[in-house]
Amino acid sequence: METKTLHVDAGSGYDILMEPDILDRAGQHIRAALPRAKRLFVVTDTNVSPLYGPRLVASLEKLSFEVHTHVIPAGETSKSAAELVGLWEWLTARGVTRTDAVIALGGGVVGDLAGFAASTVLRGVDMVQIPTTLLSQVDSSVGGKTAIDLSTGKNLAGTFCQPKLVLMDPGVLSTLPDADFMSGMAEVIKYGCIWSADFFDFLAARPTRAALTADILSILYTCCDIKRRVVVEDEHDTGLRMILNFGHTLGHAYELAGHYETWTHGQAVAAGMVTAAELGQRLEITEPGAAQRLRDILTPLGLPTHIPCDLAHMEKAVSIDKKSAGDNVTLILLEKIGVVRPLTLPKAEVLDALRRITEA
Amino acid sequence: METKTLHVDAGSGYDILMEPDILDRAGQHIRAALPRAKRLFVVTDTNVSPLYGPRLVASLEKLSFEVHTHVIPAGETSKSAAELVGLWEWLTARGVTRTDAVIALGGGVVGDLAGFAASTVLRGVDMVQIPTTLLSQVDSSVGGKTAIDLSTGKNLAGTFCQPKLVLMDPGVLSTLPDADFMSGMAEVIKYGCIWSADFFDFLAARPTRAALTADILSILYTCCDIKRRVVVEDEHDTGLRMILNFGHTLGHAYELAGHYETWTHGQAVAAGMVTAAELGQRLEITEPGAAQRLRDILTPLGLPTHIPCDLAHMEKAVSIDKKSAGDNVTLILLEKIGVVRPLTLPKAEVLDALRRITEA
Repeated sequence: METKTLHVDAGSGYDILMEPDILDRAGQHIRAALPRAKRLFVVTDTNVSPLYGPRLVASLEKLSFEVHTHVIPAGETSKSAAELVGLWEWLTARGVTRTDAVIALGGGVVGDLAGFAASTVLRGVDMVQIPTTLLSQVDSSVGGKTAIDLSTGKNLAGTFCQPKLVLMDPGVLSTLPDADFMSGMAEVIKYGCIWSADFFDFLAARPTRAALTADILSILYTCCDIKRRVVVEDEHDTGLRMILNFGHTLGHAYELAGHYETWTHGQAVAAGMVTAAELGQRLEITEPGAAQRLRDILTPLGLPTHIPCDLAHMEKAVSIDKKSAGDNVTLILLEKIGVVRPLTLPKAEVLDALRRITEA
Repeated sequence: METKTLHVDAGSGYDILMEPDILDRAGQHIRAALPRAKRLFVVTDTNVSPLYGPRLVASLEKLSFEVHTHVIPAGETSKSAAELVGLWEWLTARGVTRTDAVIALGGGVVGDLAGFAASTVLRGVDMVQIPTTLLSQVDSSVGGKTAIDLSTGKNLAGTFCQPKLVLMDPGVLSTLPDADFMSGMAEVIKYGCIWSADFFDFLAARPTRAALTADILSILYTCCDIKRRVVVEDEHDTGLRMILNFGHTLGHAYELAGHYETWTHGQAVAAGMVTAAELGQRLEITEPGAAQRLRDILTPLGLPTHIPCDLAHMEKAVSIDKKSAGDNVTLILLEKIGVVRPLTLPKAEVLDALRRITEA
């Protein structure tokens, strides 16, 4: 059986195990990682629970864990203060102790919410991530960020909290709708852009879901390895980690334009990467042709390279970015495929260049 | 001017500054500790705001900080999920950034709530504690624990979060009601019990509020210094810190019996320390006479040495304690005044001894 393992040297250190059908062996891996745990609190959602809940629970009960399951409604609206408080109450009503653990089985919403609850209930209990979407496998289950949305914006409250173990079963991606798979692919391609031209070329040579799925274990490994290197160097998000935002600041504008409903995160990031490349070419920072290479890799996957969006949304996205300070904004720009760097520019200059691109 | 300074080597390290009227110089100290901060978000309550809010704000504005103030209702009921979410929304609606800071001006409730919000909004912004009760000065502003209460129990969600600076103005204690001052004194006396017979004797020689107030700076310093030593050795509460719970597990029974309303925390701790000493004497762990010495120091201060409480509450307090596991319970017992040690005993044995004490 093909297995890949990555060790992440953040927090107390933890392993990411990638293996087909690892869901059926979750119990033994969790027992090994958390020898003192007796009770496990599985948090999942209404989409994932019927598909994979019973397999996970069976695997855990085989190892004599006492298992409790909490199912939240699927969708971003569950990343709310109300669900967080509900989860705290659910955990403590069942007498969670400091040697118990929370298991997040689901996509980014489940991972972010359950991770926030786990890192704060009793001031922190152990956490295992079992991401079930491509996006959460390559992105949110590595790095230790948790969050909920507030009425004032997305991801505005949360913690840094490293899991004790991450289990990735590539098999669970088979039930993912194409749109969600491709949303994850935008982030996968981002890793090529920011770190490795070879990986970018590897992906460009696999322009269908079937071709990508045939090499999915290797793709997961490469993405998590890149993210691990970035996160270990910058656990508390004060420097290098910002390169992971490539395509995101401008992508945020597209999300704002669609109010987070019309466009998925991946679609917004895809168009954001192209726009960032065009901006970089206009500013003569990015190698000519890079934006076209991005269009060429994104288009066969059905990912947008342009999203209708007015300058007001661009301006808002640039202004509210966490890395924004005063009249300047820091953007991650390509030098060439595989190499990015942060650049702090006057907001007015960025918006002027974006206007020319939008009008072009 | 008499000033005392303690450096706490936890988190990124921070100072505790103790000085009469330091409230009027808060701006310059905060500027020195947080050179990048532009905006300060003061959290206080309806009791403290009219007494000390204007002086603090004036001192901050003199140093050109932009100051925003959020006033919560005074009392333990504000340590709620609803107030936490309200604070997150308030901070983010005003565009809090990672270089801004939250200032907690008040007692333990304000410090716990504001600290939790500060450590989680944007995944953590800087925090300054300005405790205004004796209890919060000697206890909750050192140690980096934050929390809210849930419907399922007290302090069940929270974080470990070290402040960047703690400012203590002994002058603000002058407006504290006697009952609250003495509630703080129970914790002060606890430090003598767990760490220093000399400090215990120093306190025993000052049996009035006036006498204690004359030496209050020295008392604050000694308590914070002891707590600092304990906390630095055990930042994440896995060992030594449990000695700080002396009197608390049994005190918890008195709080439960009074549903947290009839008896203040300090009154419950006072009676809890006496009961723990009696229990220790019965188990031949505690030096004979220790319980009497405790009664002798507590009585002149109007603190209870016994609280009517049935065995059911004792049993509940012993069972739900965070340090409880299975059929055993770990209690902190006196060897003699100034020396404690944790002892893990069968719950049945503890309850049996408590029954004999209660019936005696």
